[in-house]
Parts: sequence; C-alpha cells; structure tokens
Amino acid sequence: MRIQYRADLAEMAEELVQMGDLVGTAMWQASRALVDVDAELAEHVIAADSHIDARHRDVEERTYLLLARQSPVACDLRLLTSGLHIARDIERMGDLAAHVAKTALRRAPESAVVPELSEIIRTMADHAHGIAGKLVTVLQRADPQLADELDHDDNVIDTCQRQLFAIVLGPAWAHPIASAIDAAQLARWYERYADHAVNAGERVRYLVTGINSTSV
Amino acid sequence: MRIQYRADLAEMAEELVQMGDLVGTAMWQASRALVDVDAELAEHVIAADSHIDARHRDVEERTYLLLARQSPVACDLRLLTSGLHIARDIERMGDLAAHVAKTALRRAPESAVVPELSEIIRTMADHAHGIAGKLVTVLQRADPQLADELDHDDNVIDTCQRQLFAIVLGPAWAHPIASAIDAAQLARWYERYADHAVNAGERVRYLVTGINSTSV
Repeated sequence: MRIQYRADLAEMAEELVQMGDLVGTAMWQASRALVDVDAELAEHVIAADSHIDARHRDVEERTYLLLARQSPVACDLRLLTSGLHIARDIERMGDLAAHVAKTALRRAPESAVVPELSEIIRTMADHAHGIAGKLVTVLQRADPQLADELDHDDNVIDTCQRQLFAIVLGPAWAHPIASAIDAAQLARWYERYADHAVNAGERVRYLVTGINSTSV
Repeated sequence: MRIQYRADLAEMAEELVQMGDLVGTAMWQASRALVDVDAELAEHVIAADSHIDARHRDVEERTYLLLARQSPVACDLRLLTSGLHIARDIERMGDLAAHVAKTALRRAPESAVVPELSEIIRTMADHAHGIAGKLVTVLQRADPQLADELDHDDNVIDTCQRQLFAIVLGPAWAHPIASAIDAAQLARWYERYADHAVNAGERVRYLVTGINSTSV
C-alpha cells in the first residue's frame, strides 16, 4: 500500500511537470498564432485547452482521493495541498493562453496586433514562454533559486504592459478602438500568465525552504 | 468524533453561505463606488477582498484536513470536494468585485463610466447583485430550480455585455480610448462574476440531483 502511495505521489509530481509543459506550449503556440495570424494554430490551442482542463480535473480528483484514502500528515499533506494549488495556477495559465488564441482567431485574417505593438507583444510572448520553461524546471528540480528568477521575468512583463499602455493611450494612437481593447486584454493575459507562474514557483520554494515570501 | 465531523461539515456549508454574502456585498459596493464615484467605498471593497481571500484559504485548509483526517467516502467526499469548487468560484467573484472597485478608484474623482454606458452598467450591476443573492439562497436551500434561474440571469448580463460593446465600438463613440478599455474590462468582470455564480450553482444542482448539465 505504501509503495503504491509513493508511486502515486511521484505520478502527481510528474503530472504537474507535464501540465506545465502543455501550458508552455499552449502560450507559445497562441503567441505564434497571434503574431503570424494563424487561425488554424489558434483553433488548435483553444481545443487543447479543454484537454488541459480535463487533466487538471483528473489531478484534483486523484489528489482528493489520496487525501481521503491515505490520511497523509505533515510533509505529505503539505505536498499534496501545494500540488493542488500549483495545478490550479497551471490550469489558469492554460486558460490565459486560450484567451490569447481566441483573440487571434476572432481577428483573423486580420492581425489582432497593430504594427507599433508587435515588438512589445513579441517580447511579452518570449518572456511568457521562458517563464513557463523555467517553471517546468523548478517543478522538476524543486530549485528555489530558479523560482526567484521567475519574479525577475515577471517584472519584465509588467514593464512591457506599462509600455504597451503608454502607446495605446498616447497621442499618436491612430487605430480603431477595438485594437486598443484587444491590446489591453492581451497585455493583461500575458501579465496574468506570468503571475500564475510566479505563484506556482513560490509554492515550490515554500515546499523546499519553508519560507513563504508572498501571500499566495 | 463523528458528531464533531458532522458539525465541521455544517460549518463548512455555513462558511460558503457567508462567503457568498460577502462577495454579493462586495460587488454591490463596488458597483456603487463605480456609479457614484466613491473612492472611499472602492478602497473598502479592495481591502475587504483580502479578508475574503483569507477566509477562502481557511476553508480550503480545513477541508483538506477533513479529507485527510476523516477519510470520507461517497456522498461526504463529493460534498467536500464540491465545497472546494464552490468556495473557489465564490473567491473569484470577490476578486472580480475588487477589479471593479480598482477601476472606480483609478479614475476617481472622474467617473470610469461614460454617460452613454451608465444605464447598461447599472443593469449589469443590478443583475450581478441579484445573482449573488440567488446563489446564497441556492447554497442555503440546496434548491436546484433556483440554480436554473442563475443561467437566465447570466444570459441577461451576456446581452448587456454585447450591447456595451456595440456602443463602445460604434460610430458615435466620442470618448478617450482609456474609457473604452475601462468599459470593456468592466463588462468582462461582471460577465465573469455571473459565470462563476452559475458554476457554483451548477455544483449545488449536481450535488442535489446528480445531473451535471455543464462541464464545470
């Protein structure tokens, strides 16, 4: 029974890594769909998100069953409940990638990103992809220092968001209102995506070091 | 032990009702702050949201402990895990109320809502408040028919959102881009608020009837 339990715990950890991989790919593809105006790729991301949601539900249900059947205490209890929080953050990252893809799809065959913003959006997309990759590594190695780097990357995305707003609300803006709304939403989704990665990384740090540096 | 366990379950259910009350009040106050341009009230809503978040964390932790210590099966397991989902939806409703309050606060002493949209925003605010009240009643009475009504109210909010976008993106729009972005975000937050209430109501219906009419 205990051997099976240890195998179940390891499987949960591996499942989180795989979910992290999936939402990293999802945001990367959503960003490509957005920048390259690729409706087919956008549709793929949207469809894939329902699979990520299903995996999240499955992780939750199996964790609840482990809690109820194995009556874990102390470390294992903290491990399982942290896993639930991390899984939720990752699932939300998948939703946000799907939001980006939906915007790309809604505007296709036009681009949802006006030329002046394409560089900022690319930078946000690159950092979002880098953040997801780091999160996966944090989950694999339980590396608290790498979790710290997520904070830094998140700051870069926040800066991009402010730059984007300065352009959209600036005097030189000469595009339709719909483009401004799209831009504001896209920036928000990248920013939220990064926030959830930081939260998930913070949980890992807390598990490893016992130090909870932010309210999550 | 069992008597304590029953008391714990009842306490969880009561906690959800209270959280539902709090997020209903939060959105009502956020809407007042928005429409009346009341910065003080907006600040109150934002501060109160951290208390709602804390209560949510407390409900989660206590539910995890109940799962781990009481090893519930069948009905009780479903009750507890549904409670976790409902608590999460309610907590998100609180976040969305805080988002509305933050927009009101950011624009104060100006209004974040332009005159042409005030009627639509009021309608969304009224329905959001009504939805929260119905959700509390659904939680108290476990009434599946009232849960159905939430779907209808949600449709009204969706219609308002479309009407708002028609005005913001229409030819007569003569306000700054920032007002358009605010309006789009506000509409989205009311819409998401209602969606989470519908999800929570759906969970109650599922608990009572065993029929899961939507993917939640």
